Amino acid sequence: MKKLNIAIVGLGNIGSYLFKYLKQNKRILANKNNCIPNVIYVSAKNRKKKRSFKISKKIWLQNYLNATSKKNVDLIVELIGGAEGPAKKLVFNALKNKKHVVTANKALIAKYGDQLSKIAEKNKVNLEFEASVCGGVPIIRSLKESLIANKINRIYGIFNGTSNYILSCMDKKNKNFKDVLNDAKKLGYAESNPSADLNGDDVSAKLKILSSLCFNSFLNDNINVEGIKDIDKEDINNANTLGYKIKLLGFAEKINNNIYQRVHPTLIKKSSYVASIDGVLNAVIIDGSPVGQSIIQGEGAGPAATTSALVSDISSILRGNVKFPFSISNKERKKLNFKDILDRSFSAYLRFEVKDQPGVLSNITQIFSKNSVSIKRLIQNPNRNKGSSSIIIITHLSKNKSLYKILKIVNKRSYVLKKSKLIRIDDI
Amino acid sequence: MKKLNIAIVGLGNIGSYLFKYLKQNKRILANKNNCIPNVIYVSAKNRKKKRSFKISKKIWLQNYLNATSKKNVDLIVELIGGAEGPAKKLVFNALKNKKHVVTANKALIAKYGDQLSKIAEKNKVNLEFEASVCGGVPIIRSLKESLIANKINRIYGIFNGTSNYILSCMDKKNKNFKDVLNDAKKLGYAESNPSADLNGDDVSAKLKILSSLCFNSFLNDNINVEGIKDIDKEDINNANTLGYKIKLLGFAEKINNNIYQRVHPTLIKKSSYVASIDGVLNAVIIDGSPVGQSIIQGEGAGPAATTSALVSDISSILRGNVKFPFSISNKERKKLNFKDILDRSFSAYLRFEVKDQPGVLSNITQIFSKNSVSIKRLIQNPNRNKGSSSIIIITHLSKNKSLYKILKIVNKRSYVLKKSKLIRIDDI
Repeated sequence: MKKLNIAIVGLGNIGSYLFKYLKQNKRILANKNNCIPNVIYVSAKNRKKKRSFKISKKIWLQNYLNATSKKNVDLIVELIGGAEGPAKKLVFNALKNKKHVVTANKALIAKYGDQLSKIAEKNKVNLEFEASVCGGVPIIRSLKESLIANKINRIYGIFNGTSNYILSCMDKKNKNFKDVLNDAKKLGYAESNPSADLNGDDVSAKLKILSSLCFNSFLNDNINVEGIKDIDKEDINNANTLGYKIKLLGFAEKINNNIYQRVHPTLIKKSSYVASIDGVLNAVIIDGSPVGQSIIQGEGAGPAATTSALVSDISSILRGNVKFPFSISNKERKKLNFKDILDRSFSAYLRFEVKDQPGVLSNITQIFSKNSVSIKRLIQNPNRNKGSSSIIIITHLSKNKSLYKILKIVNKRSYVLKKSKLIRIDDI
Repeated sequence: MKKLNIAIVGLGNIGSYLFKYLKQNKRILANKNNCIPNVIYVSAKNRKKKRSFKISKKIWLQNYLNATSKKNVDLIVELIGGAEGPAKKLVFNALKNKKHVVTANKALIAKYGDQLSKIAEKNKVNLEFEASVCGGVPIIRSLKESLIANKINRIYGIFNGTSNYILSCMDKKNKNFKDVLNDAKKLGYAESNPSADLNGDDVSAKLKILSSLCFNSFLNDNINVEGIKDIDKEDINNANTLGYKIKLLGFAEKINNNIYQRVHPTLIKKSSYVASIDGVLNAVIIDGSPVGQSIIQGEGAGPAATTSALVSDISSILRGNVKFPFSISNKERKKLNFKDILDRSFSAYLRFEVKDQPGVLSNITQIFSKNSVSIKRLIQNPNRNKGSSSIIIITHLSKNKSLYKILKIVNKRSYVLKKSKLIRIDDI
């Protein structure tokens, strides 16, 4: 049977899990792919770190970059992480030296994916990154292979388990953001520095990658990104009262040949599929033609689920399933018109915390009217003890820039007690 | 660019859709797969049938079987249907003559898949059948490629859109089976002879295929099959009252190295994911290790969704992604222990329609007790006008054979007015 020689670089949680997995499952993978996955080198920062498994001295590479120059290496699995530094060096060099690359590095692909894919294509090697988006959810292989027949109009979903865990806990336990975040850290569902998960950057990187796969375009940084840090318990409760849940969603959509990429907390109907996804799960919804709507859901993170994705990529290379990294040849990838969302219309939830005094409500509704935003529903909750009032407005479809303008104007008024809120509503 | 020469045999709804699709999308498919999908022959029963598209005389094959002997044909797409007759002849001959085969024929694969896969493997050609199970839901490619790393313990789901449509309509509109079936026929959601959809046979064939892919086993006919024909409006209402929905589910599960395959209406909690799938959608849930639980949902039937599946198979062959038809080499496929469900335990819903007279309830509960089936919940609904009573019993986990025995004994009693019901409950 043929063999494929593999070097694994990076032995954190994921690298370690993969190393052990490949050792234990070498035979079955060989039988399924008709080619033996042969790990001949590993490398990581610290050789002497205590590990739950033994690494023979023979396969340890002192200098990780040597993996790219060894003639007998066919495939390098990059599990260092980060868009710059060693990971970048490793992957660029590997592809230049005609090694296949499998990586879980979303930051690297989101930033340098276009350059890397050109080198891979030129050198006829695979650059696979299933594990970089949504862990065990096989969304990249689905877009590149299972759903290859389809023109995709929209992809959206829950791409960040930490945020989703926090929002669903706030909802279920009626707790505030800070308390839930602390719980999540204790339970290992949030990192000690969770900012990329909470400010939307993690979703943004994933969306960039998915979007280019869906629309056969180059990676594009024009993404509207908002995280969940400003979501209060009050917003969650208001959403519930109005029949909605709040989820952090990523959307990439093609409307009249314009592409919009957006990441933001979203009010969605309680009865919708996405509203039912709780905890750390990820879910991706794809609207395509001819297939219609497809949904893929699963574990979005963790060494086990990520290993499932890495092994699917490795297996694809074992079978010689050579593909363009972004579905289609670089010369066929398009420069599409990526637009910001200012001119796109949304229905929205706005919340104003104001002094409970005469004339405020009429002033606010006048501002809406002057900016051509029509109100679908208005709820005023006075808090007599505090002399304050909470005004919640649901709008009809309105230009995003008009909604921003209203926020800006109202926030300047002296009756405003707290920065006003805008959460978009999506009818999904 | 390389070319792959294709013959399409069968031009019904699906064949026609595919033919047009390949014509319109030849260029993009070639660009994505680095190989041109070149349709050089088509054949069907009736050349003179009115079609919405033109077929050049040059590509029409008078005798469909000639596709298998033409030297310039690389791939045959079989869309005739049926386990026997022309479809069987075509696919056997094609593989023997070293042609790749793509088929949507679930009956053929469920019956002859093992034999066919041996020929394909020997001749190093692909036999692909994504379109044979759940239309546009890419479950086969997911099992064979995306989730290749996983040991699968269980696969289950909604595999038949017609049944699911009928059950969800009965539930939503509070209508009885016959009326909903008539509506479904008018709307095109049920065939004029829908028996295979309603008696569970369609699900059974799909489950056989999925099960062998999940467990690396040969196809096995040991399947418990029950359809939805006996589900009454009353059962649906009772289920609702008890917090359940009724769905026709297929399950293949590995428990202590035994495989159980079963298809039957199932009571599942309203809050479960599967309960939320209404209409003609299909959904497949896979429990695997290391990935955890994965869900794939989409359109299960129709020419458009099926074409999506066929094109993913064709593309795989265009890229030279040669695979074993059932994931693993025939010599590695296992003869596993497929057991019937008699000794497996279930919680169950039983419904007895009896004369409303003293002693009946106590007699029934005695029969339960003698057969070691313990009762979790009992509801008696007397219908004084008719002098009858409906007794609904929810059991704790009990051996399937004990449940059958109770049914058999009770059904013989003179107080029984109507054949008693057993619907299993699954805690999914």
